[in-house]
Amino acid sequence: MDLIQLGQRAKQASFALATTTTATKNTALAVMADELEKQSKTILEANAIDIQAARDAGMSEALLDRLLLNEDRLKAIANDVRNVITLNDPIGSELDSRVLENGLSLSRRRVPLGVVGVIYEARPNVTIDIASLCLKTGNASILRGGRETFHSNMALVKVIQTALEQTGLPIASVQYIEKPDRELVSQLLKLDEYVDMIIPRGGAGLHKMCKENSTIPVIIGGFGISHVFVDESADIERSVAVVENSKVQRPSACNSLDTLLVHKAVAETFLSKLAASLKDKVEFVAHDSALPYLTHASKVRAAVEGDFDTEWLAFVLGVKVVDDVEGAIQHMRDHNASHSDAIMTNDLNNAERFINTAGSAAVYVNASTRFTDGAQFGLGAEVAVSTQKLHARGPMGLEELTSYKWVGKGNYLPRP
Amino acid sequence: MDLIQLGQRAKQASFALATTTTATKNTALAVMADELEKQSKTILEANAIDIQAARDAGMSEALLDRLLLNEDRLKAIANDVRNVITLNDPIGSELDSRVLENGLSLSRRRVPLGVVGVIYEARPNVTIDIASLCLKTGNASILRGGRETFHSNMALVKVIQTALEQTGLPIASVQYIEKPDRELVSQLLKLDEYVDMIIPRGGAGLHKMCKENSTIPVIIGGFGISHVFVDESADIERSVAVVENSKVQRPSACNSLDTLLVHKAVAETFLSKLAASLKDKVEFVAHDSALPYLTHASKVRAAVEGDFDTEWLAFVLGVKVVDDVEGAIQHMRDHNASHSDAIMTNDLNNAERFINTAGSAAVYVNASTRFTDGAQFGLGAEVAVSTQKLHARGPMGLEELTSYKWVGKGNYLPRP
Repeated sequence: MDLIQLGQRAKQASFALATTTTATKNTALAVMADELEKQSKTILEANAIDIQAARDAGMSEALLDRLLLNEDRLKAIANDVRNVITLNDPIGSELDSRVLENGLSLSRRRVPLGVVGVIYEARPNVTIDIASLCLKTGNASILRGGRETFHSNMALVKVIQTALEQTGLPIASVQYIEKPDRELVSQLLKLDEYVDMIIPRGGAGLHKMCKENSTIPVIIGGFGISHVFVDESADIERSVAVVENSKVQRPSACNSLDTLLVHKAVAETFLSKLAASLKDKVEFVAHDSALPYLTHASKVRAAVEGDFDTEWLAFVLGVKVVDDVEGAIQHMRDHNASHSDAIMTNDLNNAERFINTAGSAAVYVNASTRFTDGAQFGLGAEVAVSTQKLHARGPMGLEELTSYKWVGKGNYLPRP
Repeated sequence: MDLIQLGQRAKQASFALATTTTATKNTALAVMADELEKQSKTILEANAIDIQAARDAGMSEALLDRLLLNEDRLKAIANDVRNVITLNDPIGSELDSRVLENGLSLSRRRVPLGVVGVIYEARPNVTIDIASLCLKTGNASILRGGRETFHSNMALVKVIQTALEQTGLPIASVQYIEKPDRELVSQLLKLDEYVDMIIPRGGAGLHKMCKENSTIPVIIGGFGISHVFVDESADIERSVAVVENSKVQRPSACNSLDTLLVHKAVAETFLSKLAASLKDKVEFVAHDSALPYLTHASKVRAAVEGDFDTEWLAFVLGVKVVDDVEGAIQHMRDHNASHSDAIMTNDLNNAERFINTAGSAAVYVNASTRFTDGAQFGLGAEVAVSTQKLHARGPMGLEELTSYKWVGKGNYLPRP
């Protein structure tokens, strides 16, 4: 089957999904969760093939762990699907209803986007994640996973399609691009006649490729340099705790801290305490301005060109001393802050200044950058974390997988 | 000045605009309105040069009329700017404020998009329109008007920049790409480092070019086939009035009716009354199914391939008889209905069916397609009419020129 057929089938399925009741969509999700558990043997066997191949190819233990499925993880994935059942279905709800002076009753009604294309890397849980969130919001999806997860994904897609079939929904509601050709990704990005949104879930390279080649709107996100600025008036002890949380809780996450900016007036006090606290855990990459205060840190090196444009995703922390909040903002602008940034301060003006001028999707005052997350934000689910400004910004939940249409009602009403 | 410099200057200006108070933005708009009237002589002289050149080049009277400025029109444009002053500034307002279980106070705060690029055709009022709406929402704008309006636009941009200067706002808040090279448009579309949104205001060709070449999100819209379906249960007399309004009030508008679909059970009654009512005003382009009922119309021809994919923008109306609401929906899907569509019916099920399955940005029950308009919708202003599903759909007002950022506040709060 070529990609145009795939697109046409997805579009047709999306017409059916758009008017499927919440009850039916939830039934399909319940069957999907049950089948994930029932068919665990088949799924784990398929995953074992991927794991073996990846091990043979020399994949690192960390990446192998991302790829690995086991009974517990499968159970957790099934429960994530059950959690999606409990979430409110946004489709059909109306916003901003009003009766206009011209006599028209007008509102905006939430509708599915239509067809969502998702290109992702080696994590098999994403397959179920995206499929269930798209299904709940009445969107058809076209999935394209990483080569390394091929067998796992094939087994998971079979479970999904079994659930669709058992519930009487079109199988093409969730389709998977099976062939490995990279050319197919380029083709997918041009299917604007059938696909309404592209979500790349992967590194900056994948996003760049999508942005440059897609004729379909792309959700850019999931990466970016995160900053914490410790202002002169900050509570030092407690700021150390927040900075530590931002950096070490899970360094591989996109919301973990990359660059620490410290007001010159507190640089000495703050950095000595921080160095003492983080000790052997973190390597400091220090700007000239910060180096003098980090002499006692066990792992420290001088920053070089590009360090402050690096998303570390590791136990590494860039550090720079700045004159004030303006200096912090200027640094953040120079290094394209767009994801999650925080200020530690007790000064109301500086807090507001930081909130209003930081170019980030999420801005914090006296809180960890690690909060940027659909679950933490209470969205119940997360499709992606957008760092762009159109459509959705920050963690995207179910509502961000919808569009709206204007609904106008009259009594045979011509425009005046 | 090359385009990268233009982009950099716009970005810098956008930083200042993002924190400019509503009062200052309104002052700039007031000065702009006053200057438009004060400098009317200079503007009209510049416009006269454009008009003369266009006339010499053989431009049609209709297009010349679109290009023409006079005292009255300039006064109207100035008053449109004064109207923008009265609109609510959306920037800074907060949505969905809540305190989460994890202790974080979270809200979404409306912020400007940043820099908006607008590419438009030969209507000088668009220059002032876009500049004032972008300014009100704290966005910097980069404008690129049609070659035919060059002198008029230069005079108008000078007025805008005078107003910016007098108010102490950066002149680069509104910039105009002066050189005629088409290559510059392609360059603008790649300036994703500095520009956040592209709004093309022109025909399908311009939109296609932007969609295919832009690495910046593009707002597609402003054109599309509009349909009215007259159901079996419709009030015939009153439906004739609404169809007539949809078609003849302003055929050059993108929300005017292109294709009329009539339920077979009322085809004879309805079409004979419509033909009698529209008589010499409209040419009917009839599908085989409708031809027998239109024999008495004075201007009628048989439809050929492509007619139902044509946005007429003229006193021409495609007509087809269908079996029922499903037949109407199928026709609309086959012909990419995406703008404004209406059903005339007294049947509640058919009304809901039509609302939920029509792929249009605006769907009407017993009302004219002509309502799709920012002013009619009470938005106070209209930047564009989007037919895409991401970010904004249908008429876009001030809010649609904004993004939001998540603002989280804690008391030195680490993520649990």
